[in-house]
Amino acid sequence: MALFSKDIQTMQDLYLHTLKDIYYAEQQIEKALPKMIDKASAGPLRDGFETHLEETRGHVTRLEEVFNMLGETPKGTTCPAIDGIIQEANEIAKDTADASVLDAALAAAAQAVEHYEMTRYGTLIAWSKELGRDDCASLFEQTLAEEKAADKKLTQIAEQRLNKAA
Amino acid sequence: MALFSKDIQTMQDLYLHTLKDIYYAEQQIEKALPKMIDKASAGPLRDGFETHLEETRGHVTRLEEVFNMLGETPKGTTCPAIDGIIQEANEIAKDTADASVLDAALAAAAQAVEHYEMTRYGTLIAWSKELGRDDCASLFEQTLAEEKAADKKLTQIAEQRLNKAA
Repeated sequence: MALFSKDIQTMQDLYLHTLKDIYYAEQQIEKALPKMIDKASAGPLRDGFETHLEETRGHVTRLEEVFNMLGETPKGTTCPAIDGIIQEANEIAKDTADASVLDAALAAAAQAVEHYEMTRYGTLIAWSKELGRDDCASLFEQTLAEEKAADKKLTQIAEQRLNKAA
Repeated sequence: MALFSKDIQTMQDLYLHTLKDIYYAEQQIEKALPKMIDKASAGPLRDGFETHLEETRGHVTRLEEVFNMLGETPKGTTCPAIDGIIQEANEIAKDTADASVLDAALAAAAQAVEHYEMTRYGTLIAWSKELGRDDCASLFEQTLAEEKAADKKLTQIAEQRLNKAA
């Protein structure tokens, strides 16, 4: 978010900035997910990632809709948070040889990504309402529901591992 | 998490690695919070940060307890995710002049931190159970409850802003 931070004077500036931040983040996630699908072994985890890749493409389109509704050109701004989360996922995946352990690491990494998105969309919903943009809030709420469902599915996958281990 | 990733062969390795990751993260948060308290203007936000600083110190101690329970020396490992989240918070805070806008940005940044912690503790609870360490899970559950409460308080602060704006 560095490049634009000197321009943040009003809530509207902060809102637009955060929109650019999550737009960049969703695009990075769209790039990262195919690599995670390649690395995953268990069927349900791969399927979950595949579904979420489709959803992520929808989130990018939905963000572009919001930019248009605000009369702004869709544009991202570097988000060190998502870069850090994805970097951490890549590092841990790179040298984990055992397929089952790698799956656990990938699922945990994906949940970290989901949680980052959930917090940003939660913030954008609150600020949309504060700024009288219930139309934008409504689009963010659709995405937030999908992020929460994706996170829940990953928790279920972790619980299935636990039941198998028990 | 880079330094240790070649050593991850088993779930136990991954578990210990993630413990070191969140231990580093909690320590970074402990360093970041006093700066956020200095920058915050609104009373409830400052109070929330003060309370969470105390809680964070407790989380660090609790993690040291877990290390001891596992017969390991407490040690952190660089966590690019929390570094990215804190870097982003610092960048946005640095050049936001208006106190009320800065408060909104700080609260959102703190929620991103909370969500990162929530996802990591959620993962550690699941893996503790998988590895038969319900005693560790129980400690992580106490911390997770405090993280969730802190996040909820920040949401309430955001809602109060909204009600004031309405």
